[in-house]
Amino acid sequence: MNPSEPSVDRPLRIALLGCGVVGTEVARLLTRDADELARRVGLPLELVGIAVRRLDRDRDLDVPAELFTTDALGLVTRGDIDVVVEVIGGIEPARELILAALEAGASVVTANKALVAEDGARLSAAATKAERDLSFEAAVAGAIPIVRPLRESLAGDRVQRVLGIVNGTTNYVLDQMTTLGQGFSEALEEAQRLGYAEADPTADIEGFDAAAKAAILASLAFHTRVSLGDVHREGISDVTAADVRSAAEMGCVVKLLAICERTETSVGARVHPAMIPLEHPLASVRGAYNAVFVESEAAGQLMFYGPGAGGAPTASAILGDVVSVARNRVREIFGPGETTHADLEVIDVGRARTRYHVAIDVQDRAGVLAVIAQEFARFDVSIKNLRQEGHGSDAQLVIVTHEAEDASLAATVEALRGLDIVRDVSSVMRVEGGI
Amino acid sequence: MNPSEPSVDRPLRIALLGCGVVGTEVARLLTRDADELARRVGLPLELVGIAVRRLDRDRDLDVPAELFTTDALGLVTRGDIDVVVEVIGGIEPARELILAALEAGASVVTANKALVAEDGARLSAAATKAERDLSFEAAVAGAIPIVRPLRESLAGDRVQRVLGIVNGTTNYVLDQMTTLGQGFSEALEEAQRLGYAEADPTADIEGFDAAAKAAILASLAFHTRVSLGDVHREGISDVTAADVRSAAEMGCVVKLLAICERTETSVGARVHPAMIPLEHPLASVRGAYNAVFVESEAAGQLMFYGPGAGGAPTASAILGDVVSVARNRVREIFGPGETTHADLEVIDVGRARTRYHVAIDVQDRAGVLAVIAQEFARFDVSIKNLRQEGHGSDAQLVIVTHEAEDASLAATVEALRGLDIVRDVSSVMRVEGGI
Repeated sequence: MNPSEPSVDRPLRIALLGCGVVGTEVARLLTRDADELARRVGLPLELVGIAVRRLDRDRDLDVPAELFTTDALGLVTRGDIDVVVEVIGGIEPARELILAALEAGASVVTANKALVAEDGARLSAAATKAERDLSFEAAVAGAIPIVRPLRESLAGDRVQRVLGIVNGTTNYVLDQMTTLGQGFSEALEEAQRLGYAEADPTADIEGFDAAAKAAILASLAFHTRVSLGDVHREGISDVTAADVRSAAEMGCVVKLLAICERTETSVGARVHPAMIPLEHPLASVRGAYNAVFVESEAAGQLMFYGPGAGGAPTASAILGDVVSVARNRVREIFGPGETTHADLEVIDVGRARTRYHVAIDVQDRAGVLAVIAQEFARFDVSIKNLRQEGHGSDAQLVIVTHEAEDASLAATVEALRGLDIVRDVSSVMRVEGGI
Repeated sequence: MNPSEPSVDRPLRIALLGCGVVGTEVARLLTRDADELARRVGLPLELVGIAVRRLDRDRDLDVPAELFTTDALGLVTRGDIDVVVEVIGGIEPARELILAALEAGASVVTANKALVAEDGARLSAAATKAERDLSFEAAVAGAIPIVRPLRESLAGDRVQRVLGIVNGTTNYVLDQMTTLGQGFSEALEEAQRLGYAEADPTADIEGFDAAAKAAILASLAFHTRVSLGDVHREGISDVTAADVRSAAEMGCVVKLLAICERTETSVGARVHPAMIPLEHPLASVRGAYNAVFVESEAAGQLMFYGPGAGGAPTASAILGDVVSVARNRVREIFGPGETTHADLEVIDVGRARTRYHVAIDVQDRAGVLAVIAQEFARFDVSIKNLRQEGHGSDAQLVIVTHEAEDASLAATVEALRGLDIVRDVSSVMRVEGGI
C-alpha cells in the first residue's frame, strides 16, 4: 500500500448513535458543512444512519426520515460503516455498540466520559486489535482541545500536574456564590432555573462528572491507567457562604478542581472544592466555562480554556475527531492510539500533599492558641498563617497550613474537633495553586 | 503493508541542525529522556548528528564530541536520517537544508516561524511529494499547543477569528507600562536589562515576529494561504504612557495583538497595538506569557495560554512534534500534512472592520463638538462614547467609535488633524475584543 494515495475512493459512511442535543448538532453540521468537510477529509462524509430510542419524536433536523433506526446494533454491524459517532452516553448499551462497531471495521468517535473513564483500557485494546481509531476529545472539557495536546503535543515532555475546572454546573454555582454572596442552595436553584444545572444535579454537584474527567486526564497526562474508582471525590454541596467569604479574605476564590499529580513512581487523582489565589489563571474562569491548567517540566504552565459543555461546542470537538479519523480511513491507516506504557501506582488521597484552610471557633481564653498549635505540631503539620478574630467570649482562628500529607491534615482536623476548647471547626478546605 | 506492525525495527536516527539555547535543550532532553521517549514512540530515538557553525564553542551538553559537524547539508543528505530537527532560524540556509532533508527521506520538525510564514507552501509541497511529515508546533507561541488544535481539533468547525498575544517581549514591555506607569523607552530598557528584550529589539518591538506568527495562524485557522507580506503590521514604539492611561480610564489594557479574521470569501491578518477590555481573557495575560484566543462557530470562545518562548518551552513543543513524526516513521506513514484547500482573498487592513479610540486636543470654545462630530459623520463613522475634559482654554475629547472600516477611521483621523480647532490628535488606537 502506498500511503500517499487514497486507498478508498467512495464517500465515507458515518453512523450516528444517539440524537439528543449533541447528536442533533452533529447531524446538522455534517449536513450543512458537507462540502467543506469533504475538502478537509479528501472525500465526502455521508451520514447513513441515526440510531435512536424512539422514532416518533419530533426532531429539529433536516435529514431523510429513513436514516433513523431503533436498531443501533444492526446499524454498526451492517459492515460498510467507516465511522461511528457515539453520543448515547452511559455504560450500556454504549460499550457493547462501540466494541461491535470496532470489530465490524469502523473507527469510533465518542463523547462518553463515563465509559472512557470506567473501561477505556478495554475500548483501546479493541481499537488496536481492529486497527481502527478510537477518539474521545469531546469526553473531557467539551470543545476545549485537551486530549490531543496531552497525547501528542506534550508527548515529548513530562507533565507533572493537571488542575482542571471541568464541570460547568459547579463552576457556575460557585461563581454565583462568589459574586452575589449567595448560599449553596440558592445558587443551585438559580442554576437549575437558568438551565445550568439539571433537575437531578447529583452527577455534577457531587463531583461524579468531574471525577470521570479526572480519570481520563490523569491517564492521558501520565501515560498510565487511572480509572474512575481511583479518583478521590468530594462535591460542593458542603461549601458554605462563609467558606467563600473566608477565601475572599485571603485573596482566593473557591473552585471545584480536578487534580492529577505524579511523582517518579506514582500518580494521584482527586476532585474536591479548593481555594485558589485570585492571581492564578484558573481563578478568572467564570460561569459555565471550563479550563485545564497543565504544569509540565519543559513547557512550564499551560492553560486551555473554553466552553465545557453544550450541543454546539461538544459537536465541534466530535467533528474535529471525525475529520481526523476519516482522514485516516481514506488512507487506510490509523493513529498511534493508546500511549499508555507506564504502569504507575495510583496513590490514595491521604498521601497527596496539600494545604488546608481551617476556621476554628474557640473559647477566647488564655492558652487556647498554644493548645491548638500543639495539635498541628503533633501531626507534623506546619502553620503558615494564623488570624484570630474575637466574637464576645468566643474567638475564631483562621489557619492556613504549609503543605503536608492529606491524611495528616485530616487527622489534625479530627483531633481539633475533639478538643474541649473548640466549639466548632466551621470550615475546612484545601488550598491549591500556590500562594 | 500492514499498518499495525512496525515497519521499522531499528533506532530512529535524529539529526539536529543548530545548537543554540533551544537546540541544546532538545539534545539534552533527547538524551536524558531516551528511555521514556522510546516507550512513547515504540522505538529508541538516537541523536546521530548535530550541525553547528563552529566546533570550538563551549557547550553545556553531555553528548559525544564526534556528533558535532559543520557540514549540515552532508548530515541531512547522508541517507539514513529519519527525523531532522531544524532550530537554526532565518530563511537560508534553513530552507535549503529542510528541502534537502525531505528529499533525502527524513521527516522535518522546525521552529522556524520566519521560514514557515514566508515559504510554508513550498515546504509543505516538498513534504507531500516526499511522503514525509513537516511539523512546526514550536514556530507559533512556543510551548502552547496551537498548530495541532487548529489543524486537527477544530478541523470540523469554522474558525471565525483568532486574537493572539504572540510576542513575549512586547507583552512584557506593555505590561510594565501598565503596572508601573513607565514610558515606552524606560520599559524597553528594563526589559533589555532583564533579558526579555534583545539588544536590537526591532523584530519584536516593531511586530515583525508577531506578523510571521499571524501569517501562520491565519493559514492554519482558515485552511488557506496567508504569507508574511499579507499581514498589516504596526509595532508598539509609538504607544505612550498617555495611551496606556487612556485605556485604563475606559477599563481597558493595551496589548500587541495578532488578529486573523475571515468572512465568507476573504481573510485578513494584522498586527498592531490595541485596547482590550479588562474582562477579556487576553487582558490578564501578563509578562512574557503568550495566549491565543480563538472564536469558532460551534466551539465558541477558546483560549490557549502558556510561555511563548524560551529554551525549555520551545524544546517541549519540538519534542512533541518529534514523537509524533517518529511514531509515523515507525509505521512508515505520514500525517495529513497541509490542510490548505481554500483559496480565500486576503484583504487589505483598510477593509478590516475595527473600532478606534481617539484623543483630540481642541480649543475649548462653542461649536467645537459639532465640528468634530461632523467629521466623523462625513466618513460614516458612528461615535459610541465621547468624554470631554477641560484644560484651561483647551479641552481634550476622548472618543470611542462604533465598528467601521479601518480606512474610514483612518481618513477621519486624518481629516481631524487638518482642522484649525484641533491642536493635536494625541492618541489613536484600535479597540478590540468587544465592549
